[in-house]
Amino acid sequence: MSRRITVLCGGVGAARFLRALCSVVPAGEVTAIVNTGDDTDLHGLRISPDLDTVTYTLAGAIDPERGWGLVGETWEAMGSLARYSSVIPEDSTAGGTWFGLGDRDLATHLYRTGRLAEGALLTEVTAEIAAAWRVEVELLPMSDGRHSTMVTLADGGEVSFQDYFVRLRHSVPVAGVRFDSDGSPATPRVLEALSNAEVVVIAPSNPFVSIAPIRALDGVDQLLAARRESVVAVSPIVGGEALKGPAARMAIELGHSSDVAAVATLYAEIATALVIDPVDEALAEAVSAAGMRPVVVPSVMSDPAVAARLAEATIAAVQ
Amino acid sequence: MSRRITVLCGGVGAARFLRALCSVVPAGEVTAIVNTGDDTDLHGLRISPDLDTVTYTLAGAIDPERGWGLVGETWEAMGSLARYSSVIPEDSTAGGTWFGLGDRDLATHLYRTGRLAEGALLTEVTAEIAAAWRVEVELLPMSDGRHSTMVTLADGGEVSFQDYFVRLRHSVPVAGVRFDSDGSPATPRVLEALSNAEVVVIAPSNPFVSIAPIRALDGVDQLLAARRESVVAVSPIVGGEALKGPAARMAIELGHSSDVAAVATLYAEIATALVIDPVDEALAEAVSAAGMRPVVVPSVMSDPAVAARLAEATIAAVQ
Repeated sequence: MSRRITVLCGGVGAARFLRALCSVVPAGEVTAIVNTGDDTDLHGLRISPDLDTVTYTLAGAIDPERGWGLVGETWEAMGSLARYSSVIPEDSTAGGTWFGLGDRDLATHLYRTGRLAEGALLTEVTAEIAAAWRVEVELLPMSDGRHSTMVTLADGGEVSFQDYFVRLRHSVPVAGVRFDSDGSPATPRVLEALSNAEVVVIAPSNPFVSIAPIRALDGVDQLLAARRESVVAVSPIVGGEALKGPAARMAIELGHSSDVAAVATLYAEIATALVIDPVDEALAEAVSAAGMRPVVVPSVMSDPAVAARLAEATIAAVQ
Repeated sequence: MSRRITVLCGGVGAARFLRALCSVVPAGEVTAIVNTGDDTDLHGLRISPDLDTVTYTLAGAIDPERGWGLVGETWEAMGSLARYSSVIPEDSTAGGTWFGLGDRDLATHLYRTGRLAEGALLTEVTAEIAAAWRVEVELLPMSDGRHSTMVTLADGGEVSFQDYFVRLRHSVPVAGVRFDSDGSPATPRVLEALSNAEVVVIAPSNPFVSIAPIRALDGVDQLLAARRESVVAVSPIVGGEALKGPAARMAIELGHSSDVAAVATLYAEIATALVIDPVDEALAEAVSAAGMRPVVVPSVMSDPAVAARLAEATIAAVQ
């Protein structure tokens, strides 16, 4: 049974869009396909940052200031891990505390890692975690395998996405992005949700490191291209800046311009409409020229009412 | 470079004996060989309960009432893990909260698991953890491999040691104990510490599930037998009761008597002297008859002075 709306998702931006969407349509009508290219193994635990951000946001449990992790979190485990930084060998990457794992958040990673270790699929574990948080949106990891987003730095070397995003605070120039895949496909449920939904939305997430890993899976772009007329994207770039994270500077570093026209170029083959903010209205023609129909609506989700109108306009654009 | 005294150790009883020993000899003269048959994987983390109990005790950080875990511990992660118990499939063993992992204690497991995942040996990681806690006793896991203590229950079925000890609260009858080994040997450092120390002490730990896993490693019993005259054991049974844990009822369930004479029978081939409490003085002859020289000294470590005298008398028994 497929749901009415499928949303391609990264982390924070997508989570907020989904929350807004659930204020205008029943959550039971929505499927979220979530990027797992950011997933990482830390201290032996499997961390799925985008899945957790979406889950916690939809559960109303996200920390509203950080945008990630749980509200009211405590940090005893991390504080104690710091004890070991004095003894860790120089060539080790274990034991670092640059990736913040709150005590309550750790429970999610413990549960996920334990279940995966006994052979459960990430799709199953994700559904269990969502159920525990009473999230009614269907949350699907893009794949049950491993597809690690690797970032080539402009001054040489390649690092994992979390190394780039968290440890280096996405403040170093980037020369390229690559997906280090174990070859496993998009899950059957993902392909079904892309095929059968009435509407597909590309959430306002980073096109290069949040949406591209999903698109890199065999068959995804072809499925979207085949149903392009009912696919709509929400620009993560507003006024030349990313709503959140490094999308804008990445765009420039990777040879694009950091504006909605560049976003249109990236998505034109797989989506018909691009939602852009009024601040970018002057670029509407450039969006058209790039092959997408511009839909102008306030897209900075500064309050629930604005966010709800954005979600409504997005769905309406392809219905 | 071998140290002067080597102690074969389980958890709580051994940890308290080591603490006492360090009050009468320099910690730098002591090596502890610690049982890892209790080690377990929970939620993807490698837990080494006996190593941690010894480390935390020697660091003065153990919770004095529980006897395990850290003093001043918090339990946010466990509390949050309980959320997932409502969604865990019936056939899963992941996600249970019966094994208490405090938030600060979790840092130790995170560090250990992360280091092992990058290829470090348990011996190395244990030394790092001990260094971080400024523990000067040399702490050696008995092996770098896996040797899981499995407990056969009297009413059928076999469970892991932690299942028996923690989940079932060692309150069910036992029919047997077996070591499920990956075949890896005692470490070279363990064999060296057994060969070269002036004195070897068998700590007051459970003979069946704490000391036996160490003895089950190739060469350990032979090395001890060859130097039997300088090996002394401290009875974990006092007045027919275990100082801690299920040693006494296990002794009976496994076909022994639960007294110091039974302990002497278990250790006679590898140790010359058995330290017993005055309450068991009437059994001194039975200890002799079983092949060990009885040394009568108060062995309930009820206060530091008593414990120190026990440690002194233990070493003196074979020097």
